[in-house]
Amino acid sequence: MRSFGAATRMPTLAVVLSLIRERGAVSRVELAGATGFTQATMTRAVRKLEDLDLVHEVGTVPSNQGKPRRLVGIKADARYMIGLQFDAYSGTGVVVDLAGGVVAQRDLIAPGLRPPETVIAELAEAVRLLLKDAAVPRDRVLGVGLATYGPQDRKAGVLLTPQPTPDWQGHPLAVSLSKATGIPVAVENDATAAGIGIQTLSGAASSFVVVYMCGGIGAGLILDGQPYRGVTSNGLELGHISVDALGPQCTCGNRGCLDTAAGPTAVMEQALADPLLAGRIESGAGPLAAILSIGRAALDGDAAAADLIDASAQKLAIATVTLVNLFDIGRVVLAGRAFADLGPTYRDTLQAILDQAVFMRHVHATRVELAPDVTQAAAIGAATVVLRNLLESPDAP
Amino acid sequence: MRSFGAATRMPTLAVVLSLIRERGAVSRVELAGATGFTQATMTRAVRKLEDLDLVHEVGTVPSNQGKPRRLVGIKADARYMIGLQFDAYSGTGVVVDLAGGVVAQRDLIAPGLRPPETVIAELAEAVRLLLKDAAVPRDRVLGVGLATYGPQDRKAGVLLTPQPTPDWQGHPLAVSLSKATGIPVAVENDATAAGIGIQTLSGAASSFVVVYMCGGIGAGLILDGQPYRGVTSNGLELGHISVDALGPQCTCGNRGCLDTAAGPTAVMEQALADPLLAGRIESGAGPLAAILSIGRAALDGDAAAADLIDASAQKLAIATVTLVNLFDIGRVVLAGRAFADLGPTYRDTLQAILDQAVFMRHVHATRVELAPDVTQAAAIGAATVVLRNLLESPDAP
Repeated sequence: MRSFGAATRMPTLAVVLSLIRERGAVSRVELAGATGFTQATMTRAVRKLEDLDLVHEVGTVPSNQGKPRRLVGIKADARYMIGLQFDAYSGTGVVVDLAGGVVAQRDLIAPGLRPPETVIAELAEAVRLLLKDAAVPRDRVLGVGLATYGPQDRKAGVLLTPQPTPDWQGHPLAVSLSKATGIPVAVENDATAAGIGIQTLSGAASSFVVVYMCGGIGAGLILDGQPYRGVTSNGLELGHISVDALGPQCTCGNRGCLDTAAGPTAVMEQALADPLLAGRIESGAGPLAAILSIGRAALDGDAAAADLIDASAQKLAIATVTLVNLFDIGRVVLAGRAFADLGPTYRDTLQAILDQAVFMRHVHATRVELAPDVTQAAAIGAATVVLRNLLESPDAP
Repeated sequence: MRSFGAATRMPTLAVVLSLIRERGAVSRVELAGATGFTQATMTRAVRKLEDLDLVHEVGTVPSNQGKPRRLVGIKADARYMIGLQFDAYSGTGVVVDLAGGVVAQRDLIAPGLRPPETVIAELAEAVRLLLKDAAVPRDRVLGVGLATYGPQDRKAGVLLTPQPTPDWQGHPLAVSLSKATGIPVAVENDATAAGIGIQTLSGAASSFVVVYMCGGIGAGLILDGQPYRGVTSNGLELGHISVDALGPQCTCGNRGCLDTAAGPTAVMEQALADPLLAGRIESGAGPLAAILSIGRAALDGDAAAADLIDASAQKLAIATVTLVNLFDIGRVVLAGRAFADLGPTYRDTLQAILDQAVFMRHVHATRVELAPDVTQAAAIGAATVVLRNLLESPDAP
């Protein structure tokens, strides 16, 4: 059994860098005071961050001791990270600077059922175009973070699933994309990446669950700013928890899975079975495009479409109650492209059901909210993972 | 939102004490080597444990440096902890020494629907009798750990639920029992306590989920030896996750809850509705006595009883798949008095269903096992909580 310990406390460098980012321009004394670290630890940490070219001196302020205090700040444009998120049906890419700002973004070609070699060549081309859009030279890029579905061997950068086609299972995704781009690549679970991205977008470290819906349904858990990983970094397979113990067999082996009952594929299949709704879905559309089309129909006032979305939201809400009851958590954040138009609809249904069904509701409220950028959160988080990996590496103090 | 940080890494003193317990007689040098702590940290930690009267010098061994090395060992009988576990239908109490040995145990009077004042007087009497059985003077007792259902305010030692009667909600359980016994009292969730007790019984720190069934169903999570707490110490309300999104309304506000569908109360109600099975249950029996009676009938070859138990086990298995899929964990341990006779039956059903339905089964196996002592694990864990609280208190280094 692998150890959970390493992931459960934010490493010193990451804490210090976040704080410098948050405060803008800050003295070592102020940093030591805010973190509780000793002066000596803080001096070492700031020096390391300077060595990594992530922070620099941005000015001085007078001090009571005569000698002025030097202020450090983020060197926002010294280094950049690229974040890519894809599943079979969609993808998006971003370039993020050290201050967490998105300096370029573009949609990726959806991988569909094409083999990994083809998709990796397309991802490498997307990296080239993103850097061109951002006017960022390749040698300023710390790495590419790649957020996608699991199970995955995160350390090795390999997918452990035959989705979308058997070719992908065991394909050395990180190594191949790194070869194709000349940039180091880290792989991350998409829902977990969304959780990390939500923090990048919203600032301070906190604790929340992410309910993620794109081509399928997933979830992530952030505790005090750090992702919950589980023994194989494959935690929170929300799409494959049962919402109907006697329900239909899922391809995963379980019965009555949430994804099969309420996910984009389920909504698509239910819509295609209804002659009046089937026409709302473009021929050949995948599950993500389908749920977005049905969602727009619902928002336009189509009652049958609204019923389908409502049934999906209610089942997702029941599964979210499961998350909240198990993890005893007070904040649920929705992310993923499927929430692009439907975010408020799902949010309101989830909030209403959580308010009446969470076991701990008399002890603490549970708030449901939308990610600051539902579509980009996972890609932005994937970019942040690159920086986090650097700060958490054993070479860092 | 409260912080999760404090609970996610085992504190120094607890690590050192476990290691001393595990090794028997050990030098400071060996302790430093095994933990990775510095010699100075280890010297401080051992001195603190000596000050607390928990360890002492047990001998010396020759060393290469000429001066013999002093060995420290647990002072097993210097201090004791009392652990009590109760719900409405049953209770058990233990006295545990510093080596983790159970030196006395007795069943408690089941609280039933009596008011908290009466039950607390009975618990205080049980404490007196336990100490008499163990021949342990009261001044050697570090505290009483009390494991029971949630939601609870663990820090305040107060139950936040109107179960079994509204009198219990908000009753100052820890303060009242402490007054009645003259011993400090700590409150803990019963399933979490069972997880801590399983570690006391089996040695080394590890990561696993506990599926706990006594009068109802609960769960706990231990990560690297430390309990997962959630924002209000009320994590893993397994009994109130839905296994049927369209199922009957539960009193908790959720629909199709596991406890309502498969717990002891469900088995009792289903059995009482069957004229042939109803006779197996003693008049006036509570849910725990009922499931134990039906279980014994099933083990004796009654097919209808076996069907009821099998249906319960299958639903518990589906909920356990949910736990495993969400937490990405490789070990499930069953504890609680309801498994006293039926442990192997439930274990085998859970293992069979997990083997075919866990999402990560191709990445890692998930093993189901019985706690070393299903009936006492929670009480033994409650006793261990007393020692852990002492070692984790801010006064400890």
